Amino acid sequence: MSFEKLSIRDFVEKVADKSPTPGGGAVSALVGALAASLVEMVANLTLSRADYSDWHAEMEKVVSLMKEKRLTLLESIDLDVKAFDEVMAAYKLPKNTVEEKEKRSQLIQEALKKAARVPYESCRHMKEILKSALSVTEWGNVNAISDAVSAAELATSAFYSAKANVLINLKSIKDEGFKEYMLHELKTFTGEVEGALRSVRQLATQRTGLEL
Amino acid sequence: MSFEKLSIRDFVEKVADKSPTPGGGAVSALVGALAASLVEMVANLTLSRADYSDWHAEMEKVVSLMKEKRLTLLESIDLDVKAFDEVMAAYKLPKNTVEEKEKRSQLIQEALKKAARVPYESCRHMKEILKSALSVTEWGNVNAISDAVSAAELATSAFYSAKANVLINLKSIKDEGFKEYMLHELKTFTGEVEGALRSVRQLATQRTGLEL
Repeated sequence: MSFEKLSIRDFVEKVADKSPTPGGGAVSALVGALAASLVEMVANLTLSRADYSDWHAEMEKVVSLMKEKRLTLLESIDLDVKAFDEVMAAYKLPKNTVEEKEKRSQLIQEALKKAARVPYESCRHMKEILKSALSVTEWGNVNAISDAVSAAELATSAFYSAKANVLINLKSIKDEGFKEYMLHELKTFTGEVEGALRSVRQLATQRTGLEL
Repeated sequence: MSFEKLSIRDFVEKVADKSPTPGGGAVSALVGALAASLVEMVANLTLSRADYSDWHAEMEKVVSLMKEKRLTLLESIDLDVKAFDEVMAAYKLPKNTVEEKEKRSQLIQEALKKAARVPYESCRHMKEILKSALSVTEWGNVNAISDAVSAAELATSAFYSAKANVLINLKSIKDEGFKEYMLHELKTFTGEVEGALRSVRQLATQRTGLEL
């Protein structure tokens, strides 16, 4: 079953119930997809305005990139749930003999790495969505600027939410090289995300006179 | 048609298209519903653990409140779209005579107030979700703490996103008393939301040793 085919109401209910999936990783992927869609909408509302024609080429690029991001992030909902289930399955493997213990431990480590990679990839996507949100905040249809700000705020929280899910998995991962690489990357991404959000807020205030 | 009955994929597509609805207000209501659901899930995952029985009464309260919030916020998706459409419809009214102009102006003001009230009510809900997120971060099942953090991050961005939608509507509202009241309330809410988010991050770090 693919979660994106569920109705909104049913999906929300599945999150709320006592099963741990779909959890924070899956929800942040969905919120990222929603943020990408809002950016895409602002770009579309700019393309339909002739007086913004200087920015139409840029908006075409944004529409194409955001469409790709929303479709990828919708798929990540399922990937996140699957990766979590694999971690749980690995922990349930038998550990009666030395061989079983070693095998189990190895499979847990592999599953944890996969479970860290899904939200890590989401973090990369959120960073790109933030950059496009900045683009539509700067050059997009000013009538839709609150949507651009909404997109930037939501993509930022989806980034932090996905990041928390990477960190929680890294905690049990023993491969120090893998951990260091991810932590270093996440630190760089965080700077980029925060910088883009700050710029979105400043530009929105400049263009509207409001503390959006 | 009710948006909550759409599949996730179709809803995301409707956000992305060149129609201005559903926009940032509707999306923030949905993200609020998702955040409430994550808090509810953490409370449920705490209720299923006997070693957390000291906190079961509190978790029961959280489950009941979050269920109410997610259902209310799902309804707000439709309310937000409807309110926006009414503003657009009012702007399209004829303005050929003095009477028509006055009537149109009055209906625009009424529609704008309604369009401000929907995301304003969402802001109130987000503040409550943040408080419950704090509760499950402090006393909830520690295995689900990244979900509690995710919920808090997402509810905060949904708050700012809804707030931007209030402010953009207030800009064209002439009733100074209405504006002052809302701005004052939003300022108080912002302090509460920021305070709760800070506490969630601190508590999560204390309980896990991670900078979640």
